[in-house]
Amino acid sequence: MKARIHITLKTGVLDPQGKAIGHALEGLGFEGVSEVRQGKVIDLDLAETDEARAREQVRAMCERLLANTVIENYAIDLSQ
Amino acid sequence: MKARIHITLKTGVLDPQGKAIGHALEGLGFEGVSEVRQGKVIDLDLAETDEARAREQVRAMCERLLANTVIENYAIDLSQ
Repeated sequence: MKARIHITLKTGVLDPQGKAIGHALEGLGFEGVSEVRQGKVIDLDLAETDEARAREQVRAMCERLLANTVIENYAIDLSQ
Repeated sequence: MKARIHITLKTGVLDPQGKAIGHALEGLGFEGVSEVRQGKVIDLDLAETDEARAREQVRAMCERLLANTVIENYAIDLSQ
């Protein structure tokens, strides 16, 4: 089973990297970009084939290691 | 219009950050994780409302700034 995890900063948490990208895009002449936020995406190959158990396992990975839940949200997508 | 861009390393390009995450997960006792790859996700708010033009604009941003197309792939998802 494959898992894709999106880890993004919570709303209200300052995102200097996103701001820098926004300024760089503006400097290159791209207009109409009002907000830029950067996050991480992690792709996992899991041996687990049951979706509920896989989701629970990935949730535990996010809570313990992958995401800093004080400032970050995570979203888990599973596919076969 | 909102755009979500996934930037991931091409197959075959070494991903030390992904490897480090894999080892850390193993160290925490998570089993059955055979591969880990880490990438970036960038969320943009665009003033453009036409989907074709927005896609073309974001594609240009990826080619010129956001992705290093020698070693990275990018995928663009648009939503209203």
